[in-house]
Amino acid sequence: MTKRAWKPGTMLYPLPAVLVSCGNEREGINIITIAWTGTLCSDPPLCYISVRPERHSYGLIVKSGEYVINLTTRALAHATDWCGVKSGREVDKWKEMGLTPEKAQKVDTPLIAESPLNIECRVIETRPLGTHHMFLSEVVAVDADEALIDPRTGALRLSPAHPICYVHGGYFELGRIIGRFGFSVRRKRGGGKRRS
Amino acid sequence: MTKRAWKPGTMLYPLPAVLVSCGNEREGINIITIAWTGTLCSDPPLCYISVRPERHSYGLIVKSGEYVINLTTRALAHATDWCGVKSGREVDKWKEMGLTPEKAQKVDTPLIAESPLNIECRVIETRPLGTHHMFLSEVVAVDADEALIDPRTGALRLSPAHPICYVHGGYFELGRIIGRFGFSVRRKRGGGKRRS
Repeated sequence: MTKRAWKPGTMLYPLPAVLVSCGNEREGINIITIAWTGTLCSDPPLCYISVRPERHSYGLIVKSGEYVINLTTRALAHATDWCGVKSGREVDKWKEMGLTPEKAQKVDTPLIAESPLNIECRVIETRPLGTHHMFLSEVVAVDADEALIDPRTGALRLSPAHPICYVHGGYFELGRIIGRFGFSVRRKRGGGKRRS
Repeated sequence: MTKRAWKPGTMLYPLPAVLVSCGNEREGINIITIAWTGTLCSDPPLCYISVRPERHSYGLIVKSGEYVINLTTRALAHATDWCGVKSGREVDKWKEMGLTPEKAQKVDTPLIAESPLNIECRVIETRPLGTHHMFLSEVVAVDADEALIDPRTGALRLSPAHPICYVHGGYFELGRIIGRFGFSVRRKRGGGKRRS
């Protein structure tokens, strides 16, 4: 293939497109759609979201120091897009999208009941970077839909929930599974341990 | 749905599974598979990868202060898995996987010619976090397969390259597109600007 120089930019995809719930009873609650998110460390479990400081949710997260990452699915795709376009200053996204705030385990921010997996986060550091500020955060609790837990093995499988991902402005379903971790060596000598 | 408390951990998926090339002619070159990666800021374009310090690639990145994120595809799935299991201390991953080091635009680290999109990164800060250290980095150049650029619109579309993503230990192809950004409001009043 022939390569062409492209403008240096944010070209890393596929990414998750998550619904982040924020705020609390006192300050009000809101939802913001985020693709600038990821895992930073396995142990302790650390993740981040990056948010533009002019967003309504930014102030709510700074004030409370916490938020919940709610994974999204095919059924939530419309709400995921809509909550990325609208502002919580003007509309009640929960009400308009028919999403239900549910009490979290460890934070005062409600999780989104309709999401199959909720990651409760506490901010460790807020770092201004440019258009976006990064909230470097600790995962303090996780809530999972019981239907995703295999009763036999106890393992959690997200794929039956039909998670979606975001690629250059498009929301996609997951397709065919190509293999599970270690498949490239398993045929020959019985799997391997990921080193990364 | 009924929620069950799950161990706080790294449950944020789908994620990209990228091949990161690192090193240079002097120190030797290597490839490491990474899922702990993401975009931190749109302008300036900042991203990160998190790497365990015991990995061979970690030292190469610390020494050179640069690396290349090579996006992966269905055709690269086997190499993506294999490079996450093996160590560059023991094998030449380039040779074993038939991957071709190609000169990058701005960094001395080679990109992987077989990847349709290469993101050249320079490390701004190395941050120890626990099991993983985060390389907070600036995107200094991007190289894209010409075949992915629509000759009519000039837009870049990654989906024809069959990108893959990683979900709880499984490598998945992309499936059906659900909609493009703004689809939730477009029917009514002609699109919207993402606020996040």
